[in-house]
Amino acid sequence: ERPRHREMAKNTSMRWRLPLVCLLWEVAMIVLFGVFVRFGAEADAHWEEEKREMNLTSDIENDFYFRYPSFQDVHVMIFVGFGFLMTFLRRYGFGAVGFNFLLAAFGIQWALLMQGWFHSFKDGKIFIGVENLINADFCVGSVCIAFGAILGKTSPIQLLVMTLFQVTLFSVNEYILLNLLHVKDAGGSMTIHTFGAYFGLTVTRILYRPNLEQSKDKQGSMYHSDLFAMIGTLYLWMYWPSFNSAISDHGDAQHRSAINTYCSLAACVLTTMAFSSMLQKKGKLDMVHIQNATLAGGVAVGTSAEMMLTPYGSLIVGSISGIVSTVGYVYFTPFLESRLHIQDTCGIHNLHAMPGLIGGIVGAITAAAATEDVYGKEGFIKAFDFTGVYQTRTPSIQGGFQAAGIVVSLLMAFVGGAIVGGILKLPIWGDAAAENCFEDGVYWEVPEDEESDVYHMHNPDKPASP
Amino acid sequence: ERPRHREMAKNTSMRWRLPLVCLLWEVAMIVLFGVFVRFGAEADAHWEEEKREMNLTSDIENDFYFRYPSFQDVHVMIFVGFGFLMTFLRRYGFGAVGFNFLLAAFGIQWALLMQGWFHSFKDGKIFIGVENLINADFCVGSVCIAFGAILGKTSPIQLLVMTLFQVTLFSVNEYILLNLLHVKDAGGSMTIHTFGAYFGLTVTRILYRPNLEQSKDKQGSMYHSDLFAMIGTLYLWMYWPSFNSAISDHGDAQHRSAINTYCSLAACVLTTMAFSSMLQKKGKLDMVHIQNATLAGGVAVGTSAEMMLTPYGSLIVGSISGIVSTVGYVYFTPFLESRLHIQDTCGIHNLHAMPGLIGGIVGAITAAAATEDVYGKEGFIKAFDFTGVYQTRTPSIQGGFQAAGIVVSLLMAFVGGAIVGGILKLPIWGDAAAENCFEDGVYWEVPEDEESDVYHMHNPDKPASP
Amino acid sequence: ERPRHREMAKNTSMRWRLPLVCLLWEVAMIVLFGVFVRFGAEADAHWEEEKREMNLTSDIENDFYFRYPSFQDVHVMIFVGFGFLMTFLRRYGFGAVGFNFLLAAFGIQWALLMQGWFHSFKDGKIFIGVENLINADFCVGSVCIAFGAILGKTSPIQLLVMTLFQVTLFSVNEYILLNLLHVKDAGGSMTIHTFGAYFGLTVTRILYRPNLEQSKDKQGSMYHSDLFAMIGTLYLWMYWPSFNSAISDHGDAQHRSAINTYCSLAACVLTTMAFSSMLQKKGKLDMVHIQNATLAGGVAVGTSAEMMLTPYGSLIVGSISGIVSTVGYVYFTPFLESRLHIQDTCGIHNLHAMPGLIGGIVGAITAAAATEDVYGKEGFIKAFDFTGVYQTRTPSIQGGFQAAGIVVSLLMAFVGGAIVGGILKLPIWGDAAAENCFEDGVYWEVPEDEESDVYHMHNPDKPASP
Repeated sequence: ERPRHREMAKNTSMRWRLPLVCLLWEVAMIVLFGVFVRFGAEADAHWEEEKREMNLTSDIENDFYFRYPSFQDVHVMIFVGFGFLMTFLRRYGFGAVGFNFLLAAFGIQWALLMQGWFHSFKDGKIFIGVENLINADFCVGSVCIAFGAILGKTSPIQLLVMTLFQVTLFSVNEYILLNLLHVKDAGGSMTIHTFGAYFGLTVTRILYRPNLEQSKDKQGSMYHSDLFAMIGTLYLWMYWPSFNSAISDHGDAQHRSAINTYCSLAACVLTTMAFSSMLQKKGKLDMVHIQNATLAGGVAVGTSAEMMLTPYGSLIVGSISGIVSTVGYVYFTPFLESRLHIQDTCGIHNLHAMPGLIGGIVGAITAAAATEDVYGKEGFIKAFDFTGVYQTRTPSIQGGFQAAGIVVSLLMAFVGGAIVGGILKLPIWGDAAAENCFEDGVYWEVPEDEESDVYHMHNPDKPASP
Repeated sequence: ERPRHREMAKNTSMRWRLPLVCLLWEVAMIVLFGVFVRFGAEADAHWEEEKREMNLTSDIENDFYFRYPSFQDVHVMIFVGFGFLMTFLRRYGFGAVGFNFLLAAFGIQWALLMQGWFHSFKDGKIFIGVENLINADFCVGSVCIAFGAILGKTSPIQLLVMTLFQVTLFSVNEYILLNLLHVKDAGGSMTIHTFGAYFGLTVTRILYRPNLEQSKDKQGSMYHSDLFAMIGTLYLWMYWPSFNSAISDHGDAQHRSAINTYCSLAACVLTTMAFSSMLQKKGKLDMVHIQNATLAGGVAVGTSAEMMLTPYGSLIVGSISGIVSTVGYVYFTPFLESRLHIQDTCGIHNLHAMPGLIGGIVGAITAAAATEDVYGKEGFIKAFDFTGVYQTRTPSIQGGFQAAGIVVSLLMAFVGGAIVGGILKLPIWGDAAAENCFEDGVYWEVPEDEESDVYHMHNPDKPASP
Repeated sequence: ERPRHREMAKNTSMRWRLPLVCLLWEVAMIVLFGVFVRFGAEADAHWEEEKREMNLTSDIENDFYFRYPSFQDVHVMIFVGFGFLMTFLRRYGFGAVGFNFLLAAFGIQWALLMQGWFHSFKDGKIFIGVENLINADFCVGSVCIAFGAILGKTSPIQLLVMTLFQVTLFSVNEYILLNLLHVKDAGGSMTIHTFGAYFGLTVTRILYRPNLEQSKDKQGSMYHSDLFAMIGTLYLWMYWPSFNSAISDHGDAQHRSAINTYCSLAACVLTTMAFSSMLQKKGKLDMVHIQNATLAGGVAVGTSAEMMLTPYGSLIVGSISGIVSTVGYVYFTPFLESRLHIQDTCGIHNLHAMPGLIGGIVGAITAAAATEDVYGKEGFIKAFDFTGVYQTRTPSIQGGFQAAGIVVSLLMAFVGGAIVGGILKLPIWGDAAAENCFEDGVYWEVPEDEESDVYHMHNPDKPASP
C-alpha cells in the first residue's frame, strides 16, 4: 500500500504563505478603497437631487436597470462559467472552481481600483456604479483565461501574484486601446481574449515543465468531470450575448450586440461538431471540442458585435471560428507543446487566442467598412463615438487604429507575460512537483471516496476501508 | 475480457455524414440569412432616428429592456434545462447535453428564418429583434421535447433531420393558430408542448425497436446522473415564469403570466410528491417523478397564464397537472410501451403531452369565461387582441377557436410525426443497434473512468488499467 | 450479503402520511388563495386604467421591470443555491435538493398568505405582485437555513410541519420589525438569517440525537458531492447582490445594495481562504469553508447594504465575517455539538447565525451614524423612511430600534424554535433511526450504482450485479 503523494518533494505547504498574501492584500484593498472608492451618482443617496438636475422623470433611467441583468450574466460566466469549464480534469475540480473563485474575488477588487484610476477618477476619487462592476468582471475574465493555460501546475499564491500583475497590465492596455487609440472593443476580443490568452501562453511557456508527462494519467477527464465542465460551457455559451452587450451603448447597440453574438455562437456549434467528428478516425465527437470550440464564436465577435456586423456576417464569423478552434485542438495544441514547449492545459490558444485575433481583425474590417448609409448619420457618429477630437476620423482610419489595437495587445501580452512568468518561476511560491500536477490533494483536503466500498459490500475481496 | 461494443453491427460512424450535414446546412443558413435577415428597427443603428419618429424619450423603451432578461432565462431552459434534465441516464450524459446543444443550435437558426417568413417579413426581408430570439428558442423547445421521446435511440443526424422538419411544421402550425385562428398561446401549451410531445411520440412509435430490452441495463439512472438531471429540472422550474411571460404584452400581461406560473408550479410540486410517495409500495419518492412531474404545472398554464386565471386558479391547475403527470409515469408509460409500442425514454407523454392538453383546455375555458368586468374594458380588448377584424369576437367564440387550436396542433403532430418518423426510419442515418442504445460510446469519445483503480490501489485483485 | 438498511427499526414509511399532508395542505392553500389572493394593480388586466390614473407614460414603469430580474436571481438562490449547497453529503443529495424543493414550494404559498395578511391586505383581499413573490422567497430562505441544521435527520413531514410554523413565526417577527419597530432590513440579516439560523439551531437542539455517531461514515462528503455543493455556493455568492437589493427602493438604493454586497462578498473570499489554510496543520484548504464561509459576507451586509455603508465599509464587514465564519467551522461547531448538544449538519451557526448578528449590528451602527450630509436631505428621509409618524426619528434612535430588532428576532427564534422542536419530537412523523441518518435510501428510491460493474467487467472477482 503506497501513500498517495509519496514523491511530494517540493514544499507545497500554504499554511503561512497563502494566509499572509490574502490578508495583507485584503488590508491593502480596504485602505485603497477607503482612500479612493466612492459611490457613483446613480448609486449614491444624493440620487434624488441628481435626478432632478438631469431632468430624469423616472428611477428606471438609472443605469442599474439598463445593465444589471447583463452584469449578473457576466458574473455567472466568470465564476460558474470559467470555474466549471475547467473542472474537466479528473482530479482537479476543487482547484479549478476554488482557485478561479479566489483569483477572481481578489481580481475584481484590484480591477475596480486600476480601471477606476484610468476611467472613473474625478477630484481624487473613483466613483463606481454597475458598469464598473461589469468592467471589473471583464478584466478578471482575462485572468481566468490565462489561468486556463497553467491550470493544475501552479500554487494559489502564484495565481494571486499573476492576478495582481495581469489586472494591472490589462488596465494599462485597455487604457491605451480605448482612450489613446480610441478603439471599440465592447466584448473584448482584443483587451480580454487576445491579451489574456497570449499573456497566459507566454507565462506557461516560461514555466515550462519538461517532466509533465509524469502526471499524464491525471491530465484527462472522467465521465462525470466532463459533465461538470459542460455546465461551465453552457453558461458561457448562453450568457455570451450578455457579455458582448453588457457595456455597449444603451438601446440599439446593446440589442444588436446580443443578436450578433447569438447568431455567431449558434453557427459555431455546427462547425465545431462537424470538424470534431471529421478529424477523428472513427468519427466520434470529442468532448474537449464541444466544451471549448463551441464558444469561439462568442470570442470572435467580441469587437464587432455592437457594430452593424449583420446576422449573416455573424454566422460567417462564428462558422469560421468554430473550425479554426477545433482544428487548433487537434493539430496546434500538440504542436505547441512538443515544438514550442507551450503546455496549454485548457487549450486557450484555440478558444481565446486565435478567435481573439479573428475578433480583432473582424472588428477592424467591420469598422473600416462602416458607412453613413448603413448606420444612419447619427448612428454612425454614435457607434464609433466620432465626436470631439475624433470628429474627423474616417472608417478606414478607425479600421487602422483597430488593427493597431491588436498589435498593442499582443505586445503587452508577450512582454508582460514574460516578466510575470519570470517572477512566477521564483522557487518561493510553493508549486508542486511535476508528478503532483493536476492533483487536488496537494492544496486541498480531499475526501476519501469510499462509495464503492460502502455500496458493493458484497465483494469480499475489497477491504472495508483503505 | 470482452470489447465494450462487440455487437455493434450497424455502421454508426458519423465521420463523413455528420460533418457533411452540419457544414452544408450551415452554409445554407448563411446564404438564407444573407438574403433575408436584417436587424429590426430597435437593433439597427438607425434607432436614434426611429426613436425620434416614435416620440420615445428614452432608450429604456427599447424592447430589449422589456424582454432580454426573460430571453436569457428561456435560453437557459433550452440549453441547460432540457439538456441536463435528460442526463438522468447512467451512460448517456454526453448525448443528452451534447445532442441537445447541437439540435438547438441548428434549430434556432432555422426557426429565425421560418418564423421570420411568417411573422417578421416586410419588403422581402426578415427583421429580427429580441422577441424573435425568444420565439426561436420556443420553437426549438418543441424539438427538445420530441428529443425526449427518442433519447438514446437515434443518431445525431437523425436529430438534425428531425429538427429541420419539426421546426418547419412548428412554424406552420404556429401560423395557423396565431394568425388564422387568432388564438392566444403565449406560453405554448398548444404550439410547443402539445405539438412537440405528440410529434415526438408519433416519431418514436414509427421508430419502434422491438429488442430495446437488450439495453435495459442502461435505461436507468445512477446516483450522480440523477443529481445532474435535477440541475435541469430546477432551472426549468425556476425560469418557467419567464418562459410563460417572455412574449406576453408589456406591462400587466407579463407580470400576471409570471405570477400565475409561479403559483401553478408551486402547487404542482406538492401533488407530485404526494402521488409519487402514494403510488409506491414502500412510500418512497421516485426521482423520475420529482425530475419531471413537478414541471407539469408550468406546461398546464402555458396558454392561460397571461389571462386572468387568478392565483387560486393557477394552484388548481398546477395541482391537477402534478397528479396527472405522476400517475402517467406510474401507469401510462408502461402501458404505452407494452400495448402501443410507444417507447418514450423521458416520459414526455406525462410531462408535455397530457399537461399540454390540459393547458390548451384550461386556456379555452379561461378565454370563454372572460368578461369585461374582470378585465376592464380596455384590458379585455388588449388581452385577447379583439381589434380589427376580430373586433366582434366574443369570449365564447374565442374559447371555441382556442379549442380548435388544440385539434389542429394534434393533427399536425400526428401527420407530421408519421411522415418524419418514416424519413428517419431510412437505413442511412447511422443509428445504433438496440443493444447499443443509451450508450455514449457509440458517438462520443468516452474517457476511461479509472478512478477506482487510481484511488483503490490497495485492491490487489484489480488490474491497474483495463 | 447484508441488506442495506437492516437496522431500520423505526417506521419511516411515508406512504400515507406524506401524501395526506401534502394534499390536505394544498387544498387548504387553494381555498385560502380563492378567498384572499388577487392580482395587484400592476398585474391586473385593469392596469391600462391604473396607468392613466397614475399618469404613467410607459409600461416600463411597471414594478415588474424594476424587480423581476432580481426576483429570478433570488429564486435561483432558494432552489438551486440552498438545494445544491446541501448536496455535499455523500449519500443525501436527493434529500438535500428534493426536500428543499418540497418545503420551499409549500413555503412560498403559505408565505404569500401570511405576509399578505400583514403587508398587502386591503378590503379583505391580498393583492400580490412581483415584490410579494420576492418576499415569499425570502421568507422561505429562512426555512432553508433552518433545514441546514437538521439536514439528514428529519422526515419530509417534519420539514413540512417546521415550514408551516416557521413561515408563520417569520411573518410575525417581520411584522414586528418592519412595521412596529420601523426597522430597515432589506437583505434580511435579522429577519431571515438571525431568525432562521437560531430557530434552526434551537430545533436541532431539541431534536438532539445522542447516537448520531452511528451514521458518522455518511456525514462527510465525497469528491463529486463537493463539486455539486460548489454549484450551490457559487449561485448563492453570485446572486447575493440581487438578494440584498431585490426589495430596496427603486433607483439608487437598489444600485447601492448591489455594489455593497458585491464588495463584501469579494473580500470575504480572501479572508476565508486565508483562515481555512491557516487553521489546518498542513495548510490545505477545506471545501467546507470554501462552500460556506465565503458567503458570510452577503449575510453580514444584509441590513446595511442599502445604506451608505460605502465600498470600503463593505470590504471591512466582508473580511471580518469570512474570518468569524471560518473560525466557527473549525472551533465552534465541534464545541456546540459536544458541549451544547447542538448538532448542526451544515454549520448554519457559522454561515447564518453569527454573520446575521454581525449584519444586524453593522446595520444598527450604520443607521446610527447616518447624517444628512452623507445622504443628502431627501436621500436621508427616503433611505430610512423618516416620514409620517417617524418624521422625528433621529439616526441614533433608529440605531437603537435596529438593535432592538436583533433582540426580538433572537427571542422569536429561541421561543419559536423550542416550541416547534417540541412538536417535531413527537414520535409520529416518521424520522429515521440514528444509524440511518444522512441516507437517501430511507425516503427515496435510490438507483443501484453498477458503474464499476459495467465498466470494469475485466475483474472476475466482482459479481455482475448485487
